[in-house]
Amino acid sequence: MNYVTGYYTTRFGELWDKSLFDLVEEAMRGVLKQNNLENKQIDAVFFGNMLAGVLENNLHTTSKIAEILKVNIPIFRSESACASGGVAFNLAKAYLEANPNKNVMIVGAEKMTDYSPEETITGLSAAASGEEQEAGLTFSGLYAMIANFYLEKYHYTEKNLAHVSVKNHFHGTLNDKAHFRRTITSDQVLKSPYVAYPLKVLDSSPISDGASAVIMTNNLGVVKKQKYSVSVLASEVATDTISLKERKNIDEILSTKIAGNLAFKKAKINRSEINVAELHDCFSIAELLAMEDLGFWKKGEAGKKIIEQSTMFGNGGDLIVNTSGGLKASGHPVGATGIKQIGEIFLQLTGQAEKRQIKNAKYGLAQNVGGSGGTSVVTILGI
Amino acid sequence: MNYVTGYYTTRFGELWDKSLFDLVEEAMRGVLKQNNLENKQIDAVFFGNMLAGVLENNLHTTSKIAEILKVNIPIFRSESACASGGVAFNLAKAYLEANPNKNVMIVGAEKMTDYSPEETITGLSAAASGEEQEAGLTFSGLYAMIANFYLEKYHYTEKNLAHVSVKNHFHGTLNDKAHFRRTITSDQVLKSPYVAYPLKVLDSSPISDGASAVIMTNNLGVVKKQKYSVSVLASEVATDTISLKERKNIDEILSTKIAGNLAFKKAKINRSEINVAELHDCFSIAELLAMEDLGFWKKGEAGKKIIEQSTMFGNGGDLIVNTSGGLKASGHPVGATGIKQIGEIFLQLTGQAEKRQIKNAKYGLAQNVGGSGGTSVVTILGI
Repeated sequence: MNYVTGYYTTRFGELWDKSLFDLVEEAMRGVLKQNNLENKQIDAVFFGNMLAGVLENNLHTTSKIAEILKVNIPIFRSESACASGGVAFNLAKAYLEANPNKNVMIVGAEKMTDYSPEETITGLSAAASGEEQEAGLTFSGLYAMIANFYLEKYHYTEKNLAHVSVKNHFHGTLNDKAHFRRTITSDQVLKSPYVAYPLKVLDSSPISDGASAVIMTNNLGVVKKQKYSVSVLASEVATDTISLKERKNIDEILSTKIAGNLAFKKAKINRSEINVAELHDCFSIAELLAMEDLGFWKKGEAGKKIIEQSTMFGNGGDLIVNTSGGLKASGHPVGATGIKQIGEIFLQLTGQAEKRQIKNAKYGLAQNVGGSGGTSVVTILGI
Repeated sequence: MNYVTGYYTTRFGELWDKSLFDLVEEAMRGVLKQNNLENKQIDAVFFGNMLAGVLENNLHTTSKIAEILKVNIPIFRSESACASGGVAFNLAKAYLEANPNKNVMIVGAEKMTDYSPEETITGLSAAASGEEQEAGLTFSGLYAMIANFYLEKYHYTEKNLAHVSVKNHFHGTLNDKAHFRRTITSDQVLKSPYVAYPLKVLDSSPISDGASAVIMTNNLGVVKKQKYSVSVLASEVATDTISLKERKNIDEILSTKIAGNLAFKKAKINRSEINVAELHDCFSIAELLAMEDLGFWKKGEAGKKIIEQSTMFGNGGDLIVNTSGGLKASGHPVGATGIKQIGEIFLQLTGQAEKRQIKNAKYGLAQNVGGSGGTSVVTILGI
């Protein structure tokens, strides 16, 4: 069995006084300190990052991490667009399964706010197909097509979407590391400017800077010395076509469905046993699809279910979603997101989630998506 | 045990009529056909690529591969500059060790010749430290500093370097897939224009397009059905500081030394048992350092030893180096290089190397380097 024993995240936001590697270093030192581990006790590092090459001509980041840590160990960078962090975690798990008694660090980071919106948006669109890029389809545009199809098919309106952001912004007020820490109303969401119809500014996750790191180990001696640990019950990756037009259905994210089914099978638990989940709400519609594709709600029901706000902290529901604030309110520094999600579940399962602590949380799930669903990673942790 | 059962590479060169994914598709279909495997029999794909993000705003390539293959399996992209291919192979090996009875495909590719030399050189320099980039240190410049130091310390001249390219160009004439297939003389090397003193054009590997793929499996049923298979005895990754100035010695590539020592320990064979090696001769000096750092020749002796050309095909030496033509003559499509090296060893160990076939080759080694030595991967295969 593999265990997550520590988690550290920088604040997410517009961190103009920090470089990518300032953030990476803060996250790495933070998690090492928390677990009282020295650099030389780490056997491998897995780094998730999407845009450093495109935005700042910064590749071979693995060697930069070796320089910061003053080590000569294997260091790997994985890139699967916005799923880069979750994929790095998945690779780290395979590494541990192949190598007994090892400690690995998984770091995700992105530095996005130092560039013009055009530069950042162009970089992000690199995760779409060439044809979609040439057609001018940004991510907002792609998710807007999905949202239009979903709302039309199941007879919902933009009002149904708005509740996702309202909930996640409330959760953001409970998380000191979140990019946005103020509540919003569904009226504010509905009156915010359109980004791509029917998605508005307040349906969309922001451009953020940040870095997050976790320690995963299969060394029971190390686990015993730690105050907190959770078991990694499953981590599954699935892919799908990069182009929306090649998919049979665009009211579902097939890669999430496949990865979710595999993960529940591997973890040997039921959907109803999950107490807390971090889902990839890059746009409001994405959280609704995730709730359905992971089997928490039936297909087509999420638009109705979200109005009840049973997944909001404090409402007494059995499953609370995106207590970190989700991508919408905690922010979305792309490479960091998948690690922050796993870290948030770790906090919840170990009673460290402070103002947003869910009582008696035993199992948690994180879902990290790349592009418009071309990659999904589903991770299940248990205490 | 894990086995390599198939290898396909596109031609390397200036392939202006092919896109990155034309090349990737050719390599994937080629190796699948060779092993008589269908797409759905592949359990995961590992993709090594450095520059598609920087040069053509093409990220999330993992999902593009899913679309080509029409599969929903886990697909991973690794990036460690010029070691991206070797690192992808290393991750694939860990994946197999964690998952019994699986077949994986490892693909490396790069599309480099469609851009201006300035664009490509700027992209490649992304593998160096920010400080080195700002100082205008290209890769030629970094390896030139290493070469100057080495030549000065061990009392050699540019003539000693020239023999590396002469040998590798001769090997290129024996490989139909090589970028350059003509012999050169040491006089021609010495008279070629300087790129960065003391390195000249003919000391330097070219900018190439190409894609290479191998199948690795731990499914013995699949192995038995194949005509050819070799055992993966070791694959080890080590890292070092990204900046030359942070290193204690620049007449050695420490990451290669560490990865090599680990690999020989894991493979449980001696240096003298290696019959054939593919070394990362991005510049002539790099092959000399690799021969020393891997322990084939003593430190400081390579400049003298290379004059004897014992590592050239047909000269009857015990160890033949870079039968593919090396990076110098077979070409250096960055992400493909590490896979082509492993593929060349596969061909040699299975008697498929045609005009350049070494007799009775039993063990082979591939060494793949990222940046100016910030990452090294050493792989040992045996028949």
